[in-house]
Amino acid sequence: MSPETPMKTISFDAHPDRYVHWKLSIDDTFATLTMDVQLRGGLRPDYELKLNSYDLGVDIELADAVQRLRFEHPQVRVVVVKSGKDRVFCAGANIPMLGTSAHAFKVNFCKFTNETRLYIEDASRHSEQKYVAALNGTCAGGGYELAMACDDIVLIDDGSSAVSLPEVPLLGVLPGTGGLTRLVDKRKVRRDRADVFCTTSEGMRGKRAVEWGLIDALAPRSQFDSVVAERAQKLSSTSGSLKKGPGISLDAITPELQGSTYKYRHVTLAIDEGRRRAELMVEGPSAPPPKNGEEIQKAGASQWSLRCFREIDDALLRLRVNHLSIGLVVLRTKGDPERVRTTDLALHEHRSHWLANEILRLQARVLRRLDTTSRSIFALIDSGSCFAGSLFELALAADRSYMLSDDDEAVSVALSPLNGGTFPMEHGLSRLAARFIGQPGHVEATLAETHPITTERAEELGLVTFAPDEIDWEDDVRIAIEERASISPDSLTGMEASLRFPGAETMESKIFARLSAWQNWIFQRPNAVGPSGALTKYGQPDRPVFDWTRC
Amino acid sequence: MSPETPMKTISFDAHPDRYVHWKLSIDDTFATLTMDVQLRGGLRPDYELKLNSYDLGVDIELADAVQRLRFEHPQVRVVVVKSGKDRVFCAGANIPMLGTSAHAFKVNFCKFTNETRLYIEDASRHSEQKYVAALNGTCAGGGYELAMACDDIVLIDDGSSAVSLPEVPLLGVLPGTGGLTRLVDKRKVRRDRADVFCTTSEGMRGKRAVEWGLIDALAPRSQFDSVVAERAQKLSSTSGSLKKGPGISLDAITPELQGSTYKYRHVTLAIDEGRRRAELMVEGPSAPPPKNGEEIQKAGASQWSLRCFREIDDALLRLRVNHLSIGLVVLRTKGDPERVRTTDLALHEHRSHWLANEILRLQARVLRRLDTTSRSIFALIDSGSCFAGSLFELALAADRSYMLSDDDEAVSVALSPLNGGTFPMEHGLSRLAARFIGQPGHVEATLAETHPITTERAEELGLVTFAPDEIDWEDDVRIAIEERASISPDSLTGMEASLRFPGAETMESKIFARLSAWQNWIFQRPNAVGPSGALTKYGQPDRPVFDWTRC
Repeated sequence: MSPETPMKTISFDAHPDRYVHWKLSIDDTFATLTMDVQLRGGLRPDYELKLNSYDLGVDIELADAVQRLRFEHPQVRVVVVKSGKDRVFCAGANIPMLGTSAHAFKVNFCKFTNETRLYIEDASRHSEQKYVAALNGTCAGGGYELAMACDDIVLIDDGSSAVSLPEVPLLGVLPGTGGLTRLVDKRKVRRDRADVFCTTSEGMRGKRAVEWGLIDALAPRSQFDSVVAERAQKLSSTSGSLKKGPGISLDAITPELQGSTYKYRHVTLAIDEGRRRAELMVEGPSAPPPKNGEEIQKAGASQWSLRCFREIDDALLRLRVNHLSIGLVVLRTKGDPERVRTTDLALHEHRSHWLANEILRLQARVLRRLDTTSRSIFALIDSGSCFAGSLFELALAADRSYMLSDDDEAVSVALSPLNGGTFPMEHGLSRLAARFIGQPGHVEATLAETHPITTERAEELGLVTFAPDEIDWEDDVRIAIEERASISPDSLTGMEASLRFPGAETMESKIFARLSAWQNWIFQRPNAVGPSGALTKYGQPDRPVFDWTRC
Repeated sequence: MSPETPMKTISFDAHPDRYVHWKLSIDDTFATLTMDVQLRGGLRPDYELKLNSYDLGVDIELADAVQRLRFEHPQVRVVVVKSGKDRVFCAGANIPMLGTSAHAFKVNFCKFTNETRLYIEDASRHSEQKYVAALNGTCAGGGYELAMACDDIVLIDDGSSAVSLPEVPLLGVLPGTGGLTRLVDKRKVRRDRADVFCTTSEGMRGKRAVEWGLIDALAPRSQFDSVVAERAQKLSSTSGSLKKGPGISLDAITPELQGSTYKYRHVTLAIDEGRRRAELMVEGPSAPPPKNGEEIQKAGASQWSLRCFREIDDALLRLRVNHLSIGLVVLRTKGDPERVRTTDLALHEHRSHWLANEILRLQARVLRRLDTTSRSIFALIDSGSCFAGSLFELALAADRSYMLSDDDEAVSVALSPLNGGTFPMEHGLSRLAARFIGQPGHVEATLAETHPITTERAEELGLVTFAPDEIDWEDDVRIAIEERASISPDSLTGMEASLRFPGAETMESKIFARLSAWQNWIFQRPNAVGPSGALTKYGQPDRPVFDWTRC
């Protein structure tokens, strides 16, 4: 197939009952996630998923499992990630798939797999669900990057099985799923050793792998299962004792497609391919807020705070992968801002309830997904909108916001305590803190506004970009949208990624900045993807031919 | 000319007497740097440097001036950067030059201009030399990025002159000289306003530019000079009162080219184009160390600590720009390690002397230039070498180091107090701290080693990567070098950039990571550099044609 093979429309629906490549089994507080990738189960028919290599479809199931473990099996304290194949853990991302995918698909694929691995770490940090990677054999590239996202890595000690990142020496690309960053920033492998490891295609094994910090433990074949079980047990005993459960069932959120509009219960995503823009309309809650933990538990997956943000998440993913020409997302809301605020408050007050905590963490992940979505984002705040609290974060995530200045002051936004730090960006700052990085005291002053904030006041506080009056509104907004749609999409991607994250960067944000931007660069270079590039030539008898220019 | 027009060999020698594009004038504690770019004074004859636009040659002179101000005119407290042209400050990097330069040249050009702007900020922070940008007219793109590197920006208020970053909307590339990062991280412009500003090709002027934080002051034409002078005076009074001077003269360090080897006084750079490698040999001091500030002052530019590091800097720059196919730099030293240490100690003990301070700051900049050099770096530590203190930083900057394990323990390395934090990397960590990011206490323990460190001990401390014995040395080193030379240069660039900077990132490091990596990606994309790309089409009657895919 050509290097620009189009993908079929991709859905992010998944359920353990329908997993093709994974098995999820639960035994009280322990879960096992078994990777057993089906050779011919790829999203496209032109590649085989050999040796537990993965494509986006495999990762969509993994992301689903990680999510369900938190909501459906909250009692689980340790998840063992293992392989269903003999002597192979995972060979990483499928190379023929990468070699024949369009640039934009590669970029989106890596972004999604990066997010999934960050979600594993998020579960470990915020839900006391620890992950053990049980490496029973070959663990290469993305396989080892998946292992590094876990808390503990056990490698079989059989004289041959190794962990490796062979991308640089074999494929001429980077380990693009956070591997380089996690090696030095998370596992704190000495940087010169990381250099040796990342240029040694056969990888490392045995005691040296432990000594260098690449893995946490070794186990001979005969003791492999028991060592994994022991370490899982140990992690379990250190992973706290939040009272959690019973789990709730995450029902499907599959949208109905009406023409080019995706309709969910609370969210509508209208795609306008001709104008290269989409409108994401989010409806606020209609039901009254839950009063206590019991009501939060009872409302389960159907409560607005959870359902609505899961729908936003699904809409963003479909937009990213299936609608590549959409350059601008216009964010709108409708509903009662006060009801959003009181719904936020209920979760905030009962955040010690396990499900309230999980919902807030999920909302935070969805908002981070928005931050790293490579589309221009404009928020339009007008009559009938409900940009309050958790939904005001959408406006804060936007590249710009327009708020209608109306004579009768009917338009308002509102803050809730959730705007104070419950939804950190990838680099750890709240969106208010990132916005007011030059005026730290201003964040607190702004959070003190507990009443509806009129347009005039919002502008004064610096919460919105522009506040046109009713005469100018339509023209101002239309012109801004049209101008945006005329600019080179590449320069907008680089610009937005640079402006959205003021302040110091963390491991998490470096994965999307230093690492991913370099990977995207490499994914454009003939040395990787040209007719004689390393990715193109992989698996063929002749060797790649490089332009040796260094830059 | 074709998009791959080769550049002539570029020299980084410059002297105010020979400046083509700048004038440096000194009036006691005030200096004026006047930019008056010569239309036909570019490095290549096929573009004209209209409207004070610049190419690498213009920036080489600027870098020279910034450096000389610190060493030759240490009494200067404020530098006013102004234009020698009427109603034009600077139109930024020359677009026809960018449009017709090879990718690698663009990347190296941006890297150098970024370093120069960081050096302006380094002078402000560490030498109490503050910079005022006096914008008498058009200030676009790189012109405004230069202004943002200054401490204070005064814009003429004439109803038309504006500051602008028109790259995104007009050229389909990023403002690549730190502009995006400085807007939000240094000037702390609100990110939504930065979004508006960076997509508004005509830029901003007047009160709104002040209110948004884009400039610091406005002045009508009649008062422009006096307002600039007042603000310079004010900065001068706040810029401390280090007793400095008299200045020393920085003599030329032009190397002698013997075949393909550059010979300096203390440094030799041997280029082996066939094997795509270079050897950088650095000789330690032969003279005894200065005893006090007076001797440091008297030794001036000829003292080893200054001369040697200026030579390393020049060698790195020539290598970067003139020898693109060199993928690996082998670092070697020869001399007496104890003499390097005592020379370091002399500077350390007398660092309150202005010249000692300047020399240490320069060494720090040169080492950072090495960190951001896109070539693999191996340090070879064997008999007769002197990797001690400031020269041991070279080994710490290397991607790997090999230290000969000899029977009679004649090979050693040594630390000096300078390894403790005098030479911060771009992201603020010392190289020892970055190396031992997983063992913070280990940095102090290591610095406590004041005696020569044998190979065995160096390995134990984690100061070197490998320590082959005399039997293995030659083969191990040869194989490592040959293997490195066989790997895709692009993947090595991305890998090294990712592994060299463990830990959190700062504004300075983000410029080389998030911003530059995205810019390099964009510089590869047809939307910028293809036949219908925005950079290619700039100044032509027909508009660019974009592939609207977003990724």
